Order: sequence, then C-alpha cells, then structure tokens
Amino acid sequence: MLRFQTIIYIFIAFQLTACKNDTSKENIEIKKTPFAIVIHGGAGTIKKEYISSEKEAAIRQKLQEALNTGYLVLENGGSSLDAVQKTINVMENSPLFNAGKGAVLNSDGKTEMDASIMDGNTLNAGAVAGVFNIKNPINAARLVMDSIKHVMLSGKGAETFAKKYNVQFEEDAYFFTERRWNSLQKIKAKHNEKTFNKAVYNLKTDFVDEHKYGTVGAVAIDKNGNIAAATSTGGLTNKKYNRIGDSPIIGAGTYANNKSCGISSTGTGEFFIRTLAAHEVSNQFLYKKLSLKKSIHDVIFNQIEPLGGDGGMIGIDKNANVAWDFNTAGMYRGYKKSTGENVIKIYKK
Amino acid sequence: MLRFQTIIYIFIAFQLTACKNDTSKENIEIKKTPFAIVIHGGAGTIKKEYISSEKEAAIRQKLQEALNTGYLVLENGGSSLDAVQKTINVMENSPLFNAGKGAVLNSDGKTEMDASIMDGNTLNAGAVAGVFNIKNPINAARLVMDSIKHVMLSGKGAETFAKKYNVQFEEDAYFFTERRWNSLQKIKAKHNEKTFNKAVYNLKTDFVDEHKYGTVGAVAIDKNGNIAAATSTGGLTNKKYNRIGDSPIIGAGTYANNKSCGISSTGTGEFFIRTLAAHEVSNQFLYKKLSLKKSIHDVIFNQIEPLGGDGGMIGIDKNANVAWDFNTAGMYRGYKKSTGENVIKIYKK
Repeated sequence: MLRFQTIIYIFIAFQLTACKNDTSKENIEIKKTPFAIVIHGGAGTIKKEYISSEKEAAIRQKLQEALNTGYLVLENGGSSLDAVQKTINVMENSPLFNAGKGAVLNSDGKTEMDASIMDGNTLNAGAVAGVFNIKNPINAARLVMDSIKHVMLSGKGAETFAKKYNVQFEEDAYFFTERRWNSLQKIKAKHNEKTFNKAVYNLKTDFVDEHKYGTVGAVAIDKNGNIAAATSTGGLTNKKYNRIGDSPIIGAGTYANNKSCGISSTGTGEFFIRTLAAHEVSNQFLYKKLSLKKSIHDVIFNQIEPLGGDGGMIGIDKNANVAWDFNTAGMYRGYKKSTGENVIKIYKK
Repeated sequence: MLRFQTIIYIFIAFQLTACKNDTSKENIEIKKTPFAIVIHGGAGTIKKEYISSEKEAAIRQKLQEALNTGYLVLENGGSSLDAVQKTINVMENSPLFNAGKGAVLNSDGKTEMDASIMDGNTLNAGAVAGVFNIKNPINAARLVMDSIKHVMLSGKGAETFAKKYNVQFEEDAYFFTERRWNSLQKIKAKHNEKTFNKAVYNLKTDFVDEHKYGTVGAVAIDKNGNIAAATSTGGLTNKKYNRIGDSPIIGAGTYANNKSCGISSTGTGEFFIRTLAAHEVSNQFLYKKLSLKKSIHDVIFNQIEPLGGDGGMIGIDKNANVAWDFNTAGMYRGYKKSTGENVIKIYKK
C-alpha cells in the first residue's frame, strides 16, 4: 500500500513539473506576440475623383504620422491603451478628420463630440458623449476609465469631470473650419424639419455628398498581448437633440477583449448601435470561430447593410491579425506591424 | 424526350405543392405561438427582514397590475412593443420603483432618468439618457424609435425632442419622495469626493444598504411571435457628471431580436455595459445554442460577477420560454403566460 502511495506521489510530482514546463512555454509564447496598430479616419463616399492629389497626400501623411506615433509606443514596450490614445490624439488634432479640431458642426453650429476607449485585458472602459470644447475627447474617455467608477459620462457633467481632471479645453474658434461651416449650411438648406422625420429621411443617401464619416479610430495589440480599441468623433453634421451615435457606445463603436479582438467602427452610427457591431464581431470570432476578416465582413454585409446602414470597421485579433472591411466607396485606413508591414489605403482597391 | 420533360414538370409541381404545405404548417405554428410577458422591478439586497409585510403586499400588487396591463394588450392581439411600454408606465407611475415617479435623486437632488426600448422584429430601437421632468421616459424612448432617424438622445436635446412630440412633463415636486431624499442624504454623508474615486469605491458593497437597484424592465412576445424589450430607471442615487448607466444602452440594459430573445437588465450598470450583457445573452442563445435560462445564468455568474458586478436579467426567447436569474439577494419579478401561468416573486427562493 505504501509503495503504491509512493508511486502516486511520484506521478503527481511529475505532473506538476510537466505543468510548470507548459506554463513557461506559454510565457515565452506571450513574449513573442507580435505587436501591431490599425487605424481608420472614417468611411464614406471617398472616391478618387472627389479628392485632390494635394488633399490625398495630406491625408496619407497624417495617417502615417498617426500610425508611427502609436507604433513607437508599442515598440518601446508601452501599452496598447497608450498607443491608441496617442494615435487618436494625432487625428483629433488635425482638421482633416471628423474628430477634435476637424469635428463637424451640429445644428447649432457647434462641435459636439463623442469618444470611447476600452481595455481588452480588464474589460474596463470609458466614454464621453456630447461634449463641447474638449480638445481631445479621447483623453477625457481615458480618464473616465482610469479614475472613476462610471463608464459613460455625458454633456455638461462630462465637461465638469474633464475640467476637474485637467483635460485641455479650447475656445470655439479652435474647432471652427470653413469646410465644416459650409457643409452645415449646405445640409441646412437641403434638409428642413420635415426631412428629419424617419419616414422621409434616408440616413444612407441624404448625406452622401458630404464624405461625412470622418470618425477616427485605432486598435492595437502590445508586446504583452493586450488589446485596446478607441474611437473619437464629431458625429453627424447638423445633428440635433443631443443625439448620441455609436462612437461612445461600448460594443457598438468600440470594443476590446483579449480573448477575441479589438474593434473600432465608423459609419451610420444608428445601425452600428442596433447591431452591436463591434461586440457582434467579437462574438462571431469567439463563438462561431470565424476569422476576424470574415467576422467583420459578415457583420457589415449580412447585418448592417440589410438594415440600410453603411460604414466600416477595423480590428486586430488576439493573434495580432489585422483586418478591415467596409461597404462604402472608401475608408481612410492603415496599419503597421512588428513584422515590418506598413500599409495605408484610401479607396476600395 | 417530351415524356421525360413532362415527368420533370410533374416532379417540380409536386415539390412546389410540398413546399406550400410546409409554409402553411409554419404559418399555423406561428399563429399558435403562445404569448407572454415578464417584468422586473430591480434587483438588490432585497431580503425579507428588510421589507415590511405591508410594503411587500404593495409591491406584489403593483407588479401584478403591471403584468396584467401588458398581458391585456397581448391578449387583445396588440404588439409586444405596446405591451412592454404600457407595463413600464405602470411601474414608472408608482413611487415603489426607481423609475419615473419613484426615481432616485442624483447628487443635485434631482431625478435624472434613462430609458430604452427595442423591437425584436425590425431591430429598431429608441433611447433617452439623462432626462429630467419627463413623466414616463419610456414613452420618449418609444417616440425616438418611431419618429426620427436617431436611436439615442440625451439631456436637454432629448427633452426638447420630447416637448416637440408632446410627451408629458411633470414638476420636480411630482418626482419628490421623502424616501429618496433620505437615501441621498445618507449616501452623501457616507461618501465624500474621495470615495468617488475608482480605487477606493466599491460599487458592489457601498450602496448595499440602499436596495438601490429599482430599475424597471419588461419583455414580451406577442401573438405574432414578435419580441420587444424595454427598461426605465433613475440610475444611481447621488450620481454625478451626467453618468449614463446600462438602461438606455441597447445591448447592455435592453435587447430584443426575434431570432433569439428579448432581455432587460438591472444591477450595477457599468458591469452590464462592459459585458454587453443583454446582447451577450442573445448571442449565447444564438451561437452557443444554450437555453435562455443557461445563457442568462452564464452571463451573470461567469461574466458579470467575476468583474465585481451584480444584478439580474429577465428574458423571453423566440419559443416564448420565460427565464430570469440574478446574483443578488432578491429581484422584484413576475411573469404571465397565455398558458395560464402567473408568477410573482421577490426573494431568492
């Protein structure tokens, strides 16, 4: 009996050692995880004939600057959260995109912005909706996530919070761009109160000449295999009633989960809310075992498009695969990976 | 050759007839779909020793009245959308629950309310967040869904919309209850600014003596097999910064999809946002082929609880199965089905 026990003990000891070896192997694998960052600057009727070569060059340059900023954070061993935040800052500070400085104007002629960020490691998240005069709304969202018990703050309350936490504010003049002012006047002339009604208003076509989907987003995976996603936007030109779109909604505009992937969306926000687009991609990946590319494609073409919505999504899965897709003419987008790949694209092909 | 063609034609005709028969069978089945409604009036530290027998009787009576109201709509062939809206109205008009008249007070001593509704047939949805003085926030959410292109409106803008669409407003005095005022003073005395900080604030335990999860929700399936879900709340006592909880977030507090189920949540909202609790239940049902009961259980105990959250969910699946679960001491809840079942419960057992 004693001999039998000894054999059992040796067997258990052997198993424990075996387990330890497995763990250290896993650690080595985690350390080898490649890192990557992917960004978008909005999807819409982005066609070569609408964009001058100077503007295209400026957009490509800014997308590259944004990618490089996040990539440098990752390369230096920084977190994916810091990478996506700093990357978004570059795009928020540019007048080229519908976020921060370049945000579109609401029906009162003001920039009313939304942003959200999510940590795929802890599932922590932060969001601000309908904020005015905050230079970088994504910074306020990050502070909500890191500092207080809530996930989502809105309007005046979010601004009070941001002031208390020393987020940078800017005067209206900082956000004013002639381009956005002209867009607003054009849309106001075209759409009266009647056309705001659901029955006669077509979200998909009524803004089609406005290239309006300039929302910015970033997703990154760092050297520790942690995924983060972030989105920042000015929403829709001429929006009313303190409308909240998908960008500040966790699971619609932004989602990150180390078990699956990180996602940032851009497009007709209402359809991304109704389909929980970002969370749905994660679940297609997790439960239906589809690739990230197929998951994104399925949600855009089989769920959002049949409802009448359009736009695009970018993502990175837990194995550092980068993917994107969109059902619009184009999407400002790019990625940079530790494997050396660096891609920037604007049009469909 | 001609004879062969004739045989083929007969075969095709036979197949078409067979298909037709199948379809009519399906139609008969749809017509036979039982209808049902399930409600909650919040989850929390609801224990027998904390509640007087008079209060328990009043709560049971109001839950029954709410159930009967929605059930009557369904019995008369009305839509599940109308059923959940009218059911929620009964609870919003009662001071017993944290919604409408009985809503808790924010840090300024005002009732700041959220509500959302979703149509499982069309995936249409409507929500209002951070609204004041609206008697029945769920009615405003329904009008957002039915009338305009947006899904989610907030703050002053949502109120402007509601006024334009003739939603009923009430003075502050209507919403004032001494019980909520006392709760606010108690919490204010207990929690200073420092305890608002994430590091030292425990969402799960710090309000434990407040029975605070009085959010109301309803899910119904009608005679046409259409599922609808709705949620209405005053959020957290002493909330600041125009915090938005899970109740007005489609996929977190409310979700409905005829392909799977309808869900309404109640609890520590931040955790339901981070897990996309309502949408996650739907996907567990749809992709993992779990029963509704198991799906709800899994999301609460394996996803929300490990993060530190608590609360409950109610739901009805496409086969009119009713289910609920919660990880708190109790949840005000009940259901009524066309099979004759009528159940009202408060405590765990």
